[in-house]
Amino acid sequence: MGLLVVGSVAFDSVETPFGSVKEALGGSAIYISVAASYFTAPVRFVAVVGGDFPKEHIRFLEERNIDLDGLQIVQEGKTFRWGGRYHYDLNMRDSLYTELNVFEKFNPVIPGSFKNSAYVCLGNIDPILQRQVLERVAKPRLVVGDTMNYWIESKPKELAETMKAMDVIVVNESEARLLTNEPNLVKAAKRIMKLGPKIVIIKKGEHGATLVTEDTIFSAPAYPLENINDPTGAGDAFAGGFVGWLARTDDLSAENLKRAVVYGSTLASFCVEKFSVDGLKDLTYLQIQDRYRSFVQLSRFDER
Amino acid sequence: MGLLVVGSVAFDSVETPFGSVKEALGGSAIYISVAASYFTAPVRFVAVVGGDFPKEHIRFLEERNIDLDGLQIVQEGKTFRWGGRYHYDLNMRDSLYTELNVFEKFNPVIPGSFKNSAYVCLGNIDPILQRQVLERVAKPRLVVGDTMNYWIESKPKELAETMKAMDVIVVNESEARLLTNEPNLVKAAKRIMKLGPKIVIIKKGEHGATLVTEDTIFSAPAYPLENINDPTGAGDAFAGGFVGWLARTDDLSAENLKRAVVYGSTLASFCVEKFSVDGLKDLTYLQIQDRYRSFVQLSRFDER
Repeated sequence: MGLLVVGSVAFDSVETPFGSVKEALGGSAIYISVAASYFTAPVRFVAVVGGDFPKEHIRFLEERNIDLDGLQIVQEGKTFRWGGRYHYDLNMRDSLYTELNVFEKFNPVIPGSFKNSAYVCLGNIDPILQRQVLERVAKPRLVVGDTMNYWIESKPKELAETMKAMDVIVVNESEARLLTNEPNLVKAAKRIMKLGPKIVIIKKGEHGATLVTEDTIFSAPAYPLENINDPTGAGDAFAGGFVGWLARTDDLSAENLKRAVVYGSTLASFCVEKFSVDGLKDLTYLQIQDRYRSFVQLSRFDER
Repeated sequence: MGLLVVGSVAFDSVETPFGSVKEALGGSAIYISVAASYFTAPVRFVAVVGGDFPKEHIRFLEERNIDLDGLQIVQEGKTFRWGGRYHYDLNMRDSLYTELNVFEKFNPVIPGSFKNSAYVCLGNIDPILQRQVLERVAKPRLVVGDTMNYWIESKPKELAETMKAMDVIVVNESEARLLTNEPNLVKAAKRIMKLGPKIVIIKKGEHGATLVTEDTIFSAPAYPLENINDPTGAGDAFAGGFVGWLARTDDLSAENLKRAVVYGSTLASFCVEKFSVDGLKDLTYLQIQDRYRSFVQLSRFDER
């Protein structure tokens, strides 16, 4: 089996109405891997950091059984930094600064021991890099990809090429609409399916997530949390929980895809309760199962 | 039993990216009653129209087994008119004009035969009028009320008084936040419960609806329609389906409240497929049951 995760590692400085953190551990590869690590191990990690990346983060990732053979440490460089501020309703945020640093010249090198990965999760990075990753691994069983408005607008051709190789794409509502120029989300999902991914997941933040395939539409609610402190990384935690569950079970049936969506939602719900990756740090499998069952309670009604 | 519905009757002129209608039948009392009429009959209707209200609409309402004893026809006046235009993504609309006409001096007179109604649904009208209605009926088993930003901002004290007498309040997300000054929807719902209604339903448009009670949270998705033509009345159709189901079953258990939310969502989904009340005109009970089962498909996943 084996799950390979590629993406960014960042120091995030985040302000929300409920607090703030400075240069806390973040980035798509981090959130995806940590979330997935509750389901499958070791998670194969490919990313780049600078010489300023502290040993405590390395230790944390190793403790989560994340295989860092694919982590490039550019000693003379600095780790990617991002700063953002969330509005009062947490659905809107302003980017305050983005310092790419070592991430600007990231060349995803795949260690030999990672090349046979059956599951690949491409975090939100340049679609050219995403494609390079896929060229450097043997044929995986499932490729899950993320992207963002920035790439949809700045590199549409490159993204279109990469999307052809994705089995699953995980996008939010505005990305789905922007990709297809179609406001209706069901139609947008169906158009995306013509661009490559046969499985489309539309993340809707506090409104949950919808899975669309050729013959299935499934909507999972978001967990109704009273205390959301930091939405950063929720989408990546979703992707990590989703692909981690699939890698664990190696079952791509419609029923198991639905379960995977709920596990993704489960990890996202833990993620947003605390700042940075704190919400994903010390979970037990029992806690995850309990919250999964809460999703059952939340959405179950009599069939007649 | 008996379900009493009070609200507005309007001639709506609506433009959406998919078409338009001029002076079509609309108003909260209309949408609520027509939706509810698929579950319980006769629906007791209290509203006001002008002398310009055509006989064909009267016939339509009578055919739906709606009891018009409470319909006041002010021969020398004109029916309430509203015009609006929806944006491309249908989540935003601009009101183009509002002509209250006979609705401005609406005094909801409750016919004697309506006073024993066990279920009362108060459409979105002045909270003072809503309270008058409740003073004029014997103690109902369940009072469901709607409101809107306009009343929350312009008559907060009157609304607070009326809310004390509501068992269920049906609000959308922005109304819930405005009522409580609380962006988190779970917290907002809990605060609303302290203002009177022990059952709070938050309508989320294309994202479904969430039911919150003391010990239950339940989220129903919206039906993933590919063709939405006119969102007007969806919230009222939801309320009508919800209260109609409860009046039919006379069962206020948590399990049945969940079913009622899904029946509300079902009627709302039919409503938005066509302009005005056309989507609610010629449904069969079988069609409604089929769509209810589609909601099961849409939201069901394995418990473990």
